[in-house]
Amino acid sequence: MSSAEWVLNLSHYAPIAGAIGLVAAVGVYRAMARRSPGTGDLPIIAGRIEEGAMAFLRRQYTVLLPVLLVVAGLLSVAVGWPVGLAFVLGGVCSLGAGFIGMRAATKANVRTAEAARAQGAAAALRVAFSGGSVMGLAVASLGLLGVGIMLNVLLDLRDPAAITEIQFGHFTEIIAGFAMGASSIALFARIGGGIYTKAADVGADLVGKLEAGIPEDDPRNPGVIADNVGDNVGDIAGMGADIFESYVDATVSAAVLGATGMGLMGPARVNATLLPFALIVAGLGASMLALFCMRWLAKGSAAVALRAVQVLGAVFFLMMALALVWALPVNEAGNGGAGLYWAIIAGTVGGILVGLLTEFYTSAGPVYRIAEASKTGPATNLIAGLAVGLESVLGPILVICAALFVAHSQGGLLGIALAAVGMLATTGVVMTVDAYGPVADNAGGIAEMGRLGKEVRAITDHLDSLGNTTAAIGKGFAIASAVLTAVALFAAYVTEVGRTSGHPLALSLLDNRVIIGMLLGGVVPVMIGSLTMTAVGKAAGAVVQEVRRQFREIKGLLEGTAEPDAAKCVDIATTAALREMVVPGLIAVLSPVVVGYFLGTAALGGLLAGSMVAGSLLALMMANAGGAWDNAKKYIEKGLLGGKGSDPHKAAVVGDTVGDPFKDTSGPAISISIKVMAVVALVIAPWLGALGR
Amino acid sequence: MSSAEWVLNLSHYAPIAGAIGLVAAVGVYRAMARRSPGTGDLPIIAGRIEEGAMAFLRRQYTVLLPVLLVVAGLLSVAVGWPVGLAFVLGGVCSLGAGFIGMRAATKANVRTAEAARAQGAAAALRVAFSGGSVMGLAVASLGLLGVGIMLNVLLDLRDPAAITEIQFGHFTEIIAGFAMGASSIALFARIGGGIYTKAADVGADLVGKLEAGIPEDDPRNPGVIADNVGDNVGDIAGMGADIFESYVDATVSAAVLGATGMGLMGPARVNATLLPFALIVAGLGASMLALFCMRWLAKGSAAVALRAVQVLGAVFFLMMALALVWALPVNEAGNGGAGLYWAIIAGTVGGILVGLLTEFYTSAGPVYRIAEASKTGPATNLIAGLAVGLESVLGPILVICAALFVAHSQGGLLGIALAAVGMLATTGVVMTVDAYGPVADNAGGIAEMGRLGKEVRAITDHLDSLGNTTAAIGKGFAIASAVLTAVALFAAYVTEVGRTSGHPLALSLLDNRVIIGMLLGGVVPVMIGSLTMTAVGKAAGAVVQEVRRQFREIKGLLEGTAEPDAAKCVDIATTAALREMVVPGLIAVLSPVVVGYFLGTAALGGLLAGSMVAGSLLALMMANAGGAWDNAKKYIEKGLLGGKGSDPHKAAVVGDTVGDPFKDTSGPAISISIKVMAVVALVIAPWLGALGR
Repeated sequence: MSSAEWVLNLSHYAPIAGAIGLVAAVGVYRAMARRSPGTGDLPIIAGRIEEGAMAFLRRQYTVLLPVLLVVAGLLSVAVGWPVGLAFVLGGVCSLGAGFIGMRAATKANVRTAEAARAQGAAAALRVAFSGGSVMGLAVASLGLLGVGIMLNVLLDLRDPAAITEIQFGHFTEIIAGFAMGASSIALFARIGGGIYTKAADVGADLVGKLEAGIPEDDPRNPGVIADNVGDNVGDIAGMGADIFESYVDATVSAAVLGATGMGLMGPARVNATLLPFALIVAGLGASMLALFCMRWLAKGSAAVALRAVQVLGAVFFLMMALALVWALPVNEAGNGGAGLYWAIIAGTVGGILVGLLTEFYTSAGPVYRIAEASKTGPATNLIAGLAVGLESVLGPILVICAALFVAHSQGGLLGIALAAVGMLATTGVVMTVDAYGPVADNAGGIAEMGRLGKEVRAITDHLDSLGNTTAAIGKGFAIASAVLTAVALFAAYVTEVGRTSGHPLALSLLDNRVIIGMLLGGVVPVMIGSLTMTAVGKAAGAVVQEVRRQFREIKGLLEGTAEPDAAKCVDIATTAALREMVVPGLIAVLSPVVVGYFLGTAALGGLLAGSMVAGSLLALMMANAGGAWDNAKKYIEKGLLGGKGSDPHKAAVVGDTVGDPFKDTSGPAISISIKVMAVVALVIAPWLGALGR
Repeated sequence: MSSAEWVLNLSHYAPIAGAIGLVAAVGVYRAMARRSPGTGDLPIIAGRIEEGAMAFLRRQYTVLLPVLLVVAGLLSVAVGWPVGLAFVLGGVCSLGAGFIGMRAATKANVRTAEAARAQGAAAALRVAFSGGSVMGLAVASLGLLGVGIMLNVLLDLRDPAAITEIQFGHFTEIIAGFAMGASSIALFARIGGGIYTKAADVGADLVGKLEAGIPEDDPRNPGVIADNVGDNVGDIAGMGADIFESYVDATVSAAVLGATGMGLMGPARVNATLLPFALIVAGLGASMLALFCMRWLAKGSAAVALRAVQVLGAVFFLMMALALVWALPVNEAGNGGAGLYWAIIAGTVGGILVGLLTEFYTSAGPVYRIAEASKTGPATNLIAGLAVGLESVLGPILVICAALFVAHSQGGLLGIALAAVGMLATTGVVMTVDAYGPVADNAGGIAEMGRLGKEVRAITDHLDSLGNTTAAIGKGFAIASAVLTAVALFAAYVTEVGRTSGHPLALSLLDNRVIIGMLLGGVVPVMIGSLTMTAVGKAAGAVVQEVRRQFREIKGLLEGTAEPDAAKCVDIATTAALREMVVPGLIAVLSPVVVGYFLGTAALGGLLAGSMVAGSLLALMMANAGGAWDNAKKYIEKGLLGGKGSDPHKAAVVGDTVGDPFKDTSGPAISISIKVMAVVALVIAPWLGALGR
């Protein structure tokens, strides 16, 4: 077969590839779930965490489903019912990915602790890793399944040459609706999960560690179950939804650009439209191969294995992508594949580089600078941390600019979208390593609560510290992919405005509306940052009150003779997080609608550009400063500058507490809002066009 | 005379108006300097502050003059010697404004303290206010004198109809060089002054208040003179140079747009070019009138007087502007003046509104929120302060957007530049009120060091607290004017590129180079923020070492029997500040050159837009968070939540310490760098055009 036929076939069979991935995820899940969850307190503690996490999801879904239906109704009126339906499907796929991942993670955590106790470090790593890989596979497979079904329903791939202009038009509108559904759910999952996890963490620690003087994860602390639940709803369900969104959005924006924006006709246009789907099929295959290789990698150092598996995934993917695009005719002259290949490489390599830069800023020299500054108190610790955070944006932005430059010069706007696809194609393995972290973290918590002893805790601590590094890398990756995806969506938005309004959108910086839109766009991420920081404070305050109340009112709790009412804390954190997620989420979803409606499509284009610039800087700064503060505290706890309880340690704890909402709530919320704004703009473009804005 | 003739005459006589303003400044200075500087220790202490401040300026000028000459040389080669010469003139005017203001402020501080002792509150207010008004008049008059001379030398105003295309071209290039000279000096003065003031402040307080347990401004503290010097070099010389730059830049960008960008011919073009000069002549007149009214205003409440004088200045100015532009033909059809008048109003009113919003965020509800959060420790204080800072950008940006909208819809790009002129025309009075604050602050320090007793201190404390509010308003105004000026300069840059390269710059957001430029532009203010925060830390560290050494080695110092070596601390802070200002300053000046040279004029346009969006957000956030933290601490010190020494107070001190470099170093450095980047781009546009970039 020629590469053109390969592309056609792979995208035709994309839903089947997605289904195979899902079956693999279920298989890994079953094998993992068959392992022993331990004895004694262990299954009970784990059961409570699972219960709390599932209760959060259930209640969140109860809030989100009606919203999903209302928005679907509005979209049906404004842009047509197929878009509304696709929106619901996208949302449901996103919910499903979060659900499967959470289920797996809450099974894997206790089994990791038990494996550490019964079989040692290597077995524990394998269990935690399989827990993560269920999430990784679920995210990639569900994404592939969803967009694959949309593709096959909307375009008749058995006779691609016969696809009409109108069919291409419907395809772009409807598949964008699917992306918006995925995005909207992801947004709220991310913000709600982020608020929950830090509210519980800060709340439990403030009273437990500082006031009652008991260690972290101590079972007497009523907030400790909520804290562990938070790791799951924030770092598993939230992060999963975030990456799921990037994955879907990148694919959709590339497909939309292929279908509308390139001025292509005939087979070249079909190839450009189908290529992103073929690429993510290849990416899922590469991820599964790499995950399979973990069998051998896990025998060596765990730290090396966790990196090697990601690099392997990228290498496998690039080899397959080479086979797909090298000779693929995507322009009128019958060539262009080679240029697109460089665009894909730029994305894949860029993602890895940003991850490494993030690791540098959150584990190397800069962290020691913050630790050093802690010697003169919390104020200097904070100034140093903020300075490191600000400084850390330079490298990632330069990498992103370089990737944009290569991608655009080699493949135009489609090249940029394919760079985003290239960065995200190996989501299966990237998300696996990402999700491994919170599983290991939870395993440590369960080991502590179940009093499994120092040796077991040492194993889980080691796995956890690896998880912290991979989590930092994952955050950098998430932001970099968000920026690239946002640029791709932005390009798709502009071409879609051109298609539906009949005249191209110039978007000149000399146009006053564009400048005003940019300034407003810059404000949106800043406001979301402010609101989410305040939300964590409020929600944590509610948890603090409850933990204090229990310490005061439940007799024998501190002595260990009475049980805390953990469920109550879980309930309070859930209620607070769900309440506080609404306003920042709505701002992200509605700002493009309001600006587009009142100021027009040019201002909306400016809004996207402004939010992208300000949002990427703020998200990177917050994520990296938070990670660096966290590790500065950890380094001191390991004995640097006097260790635990010293004055530098106290100063570092202040920095860490400020960094917590930075890195786990506001940073991620901002990063996801950039994409959401862009995808909303893409979906409402036909509506704005019809209104003549 | 018709309004067209008025415009012609006023701009023709602009240098004379500037000279009159300077004479008035000298008159006010002399009257103030004739007052008694008090007896005993007072003149000695004041002498040390004056000496330190002048030594800083002298050493800073020694560093800057050679730099000025080197850059002038480079400009002469790249764009022609007249541009190089104008650059030097602009720099010298900026240096002059800083010098005069500093001289006046260091005379006025001790005289304010003495007036408070001998004559009471009203007299003290008058002295402090005259000190400020010398600065205000000097900034506005020197600016007017400088641009007025340039105008008259470059264009023959006796026969405006005969001005040729080439003459207009030279005019825009050369007067832009003047603006760049003013900007470059302002940049370094602002960054160096900002680092100095906070290094001395933090350094003196850390050792004095926290380690030695002696009160603020205690004469035993070796760092206290340096701290008072810092108020002058940062808030007087630095702020003055900053506003001077905005004033010159706004005028120049409006003149450049009039001369090149409007596609106008004949009298309309001349009118558009001359109008900004006529407006600032009117603004200076209005400022002097308002300052004169202070005679009566000062009899009532000081708080009311300080606001009323600014509003009066604005009202006078708007009345004069109305007379100037209402019937002025500035377009081919022979009308347009009315539209321009709305643009000017938008700027003037916008400046006042942003000031009021800033006051709200740094003195009202949000400050109580931060104080409240201090109850649970420094971490929650910091989270609350950062959230308030982030939140506070919304209002000012909305006001700026509204001003841009009105200005552009009524007067196009020229309207935007005239809005900036409208905001800055009353610089004479705005800067007066601004400079009043540090004079009052210094008076309080001198009263404390000179042991003038509680009653005197109560008067100066009251004047100082008013100064804190006006300073916060001034910062908001400085940032708002910087954003508007930057947009105006940006428009001037684009038209200048079009003029010199022969084809208009499209600057579409779909152009990959524009997007890359925007992302890079966003990074520049972030890096300047990071570097200046780190610089304050380093410079403060040097001061801390020295103060500690003196407490250790000078016997009898703490007992009050030996004198501290204050000059040594001043010297150390000076050296550190001058060293640390270099890198952030160079980044701002060189980034447009590098991006323009390597990536071209489109990327440079993107750079300006990105720096404007990210820079305005970051500067507003930092300035307002810093001001709010400061006042949260002050409110607690006045008795809220347990007062001085309580746990909430300790937490609030941490926030205040973090906020110090935010509001006085990094925020201002970022805000000024936005303008500098834009003016550099404007100046190098012909060079880039000649290179074909």
